[in-house]
Amino acid sequence: MATGILYGVGTGPGDPELITRRAWRLIETAHVIAYPAPDTGDSFARAIASDAIAENAIEIPMVVPMLTGRVPAQSIYDTAASAIATHLDAGSDVVVLCEGDPLFYGSFMYLLARLKDSYDVEIVPGVTSLTACAAAHAHPLVARNDILTILPGPLDDIVLAEKIAAADAVAIMKIGRHMPRLKALLTRLVLEDRALYVSHASLGHQRHLRLKDAPDEAPYFSMILLYKGDDPWIS
Amino acid sequence: MATGILYGVGTGPGDPELITRRAWRLIETAHVIAYPAPDTGDSFARAIASDAIAENAIEIPMVVPMLTGRVPAQSIYDTAASAIATHLDAGSDVVVLCEGDPLFYGSFMYLLARLKDSYDVEIVPGVTSLTACAAAHAHPLVARNDILTILPGPLDDIVLAEKIAAADAVAIMKIGRHMPRLKALLTRLVLEDRALYVSHASLGHQRHLRLKDAPDEAPYFSMILLYKGDDPWIS
Repeated sequence: MATGILYGVGTGPGDPELITRRAWRLIETAHVIAYPAPDTGDSFARAIASDAIAENAIEIPMVVPMLTGRVPAQSIYDTAASAIATHLDAGSDVVVLCEGDPLFYGSFMYLLARLKDSYDVEIVPGVTSLTACAAAHAHPLVARNDILTILPGPLDDIVLAEKIAAADAVAIMKIGRHMPRLKALLTRLVLEDRALYVSHASLGHQRHLRLKDAPDEAPYFSMILLYKGDDPWIS
Repeated sequence: MATGILYGVGTGPGDPELITRRAWRLIETAHVIAYPAPDTGDSFARAIASDAIAENAIEIPMVVPMLTGRVPAQSIYDTAASAIATHLDAGSDVVVLCEGDPLFYGSFMYLLARLKDSYDVEIVPGVTSLTACAAAHAHPLVARNDILTILPGPLDDIVLAEKIAAADAVAIMKIGRHMPRLKALLTRLVLEDRALYVSHASLGHQRHLRLKDAPDEAPYFSMILLYKGDDPWIS
């Protein structure tokens, strides 16, 4: 009997309407669905896709403790990969739900590394928070031959300042508790007037503000966008 | 009478199945649709969305001559913005189709600059070629606190080498006629063994190869992906 296919499926940034048609159909027809879940509360990936999940689907939550600044124990992914492999071996496809895109700062890579040599894998790319945040402001991310650098907020100020200086456009992701430091950094670099802030892009409680007007308390799912040049799309 | 809404809608990288549900519905119900088109041949954005376009929709092709390395004359966008504004003023919404995402290296910015102060604008983000190319290889783009730099291929070797050195992961876009030079550059940097190549991501004629195995002739819609670190998703 043929083994099943492992699908890594991007759910997009949060609005279920931003799921692709292919992802939606794969989720609707999936008999086995896996997704990351926090140790308390609901899985965001599952919540995005919930209207597409069949009532009788087998669900495999991968409970990943939310430890700030720490990479979760790899044993979690060993266990999840093993549970998924059991279904693949039995001939069932398995759909793994991934917030945003599976290969863009996602935890899907840990499953991929464990399963890709033994099973057929197909990735369904998704809309990332990067473009969803630009959409919130209706502001171009990057134009023409500009260089775009994507920076995780937890990096230290020296690294961030150097990379910001070298780019035309910057997105700083994973803001969370780093917000006051990042605001101070961009003020020091005299870039705070150009920086835009977005939290919970595409969701009902999305906020999009100029960075200087944004609160110091920022969720993990928030981003700073910065276009350093003159608006090149004007002239 | 209320004016219409200008929708900037991402069609994704090429496979119509990678259009989001929201984009698909907006296109299906649109009375007026605009899209970029080359001076000869079909519009790629229109081709991606064609199955959703109503037969009686009014279509506004924005014919942009394909001049290598030159920014198209702004008068083209003046004319297109004016045609679109006529429909918006008459109370019709206008859906502008954008390959990939409207705000990620897209020509939509030129319309946006002309119309955003006078009309309501909504952006529907799309799947970019960036994540579609990673999906083609089922290879993570970027992980954990990595820095991802997106570089247009037409930049010169000195700039590219410096930015590649400073990043953990790199995507080089808009390859086209720059392919032989880019291959030589990555060979000089002793990175050619790690570089992946993709053309026409998500389409039936997609090619995905290691860069060293890729032909010297590359289309504009092709990309080089490079992950410089050790696979961080293994350990």
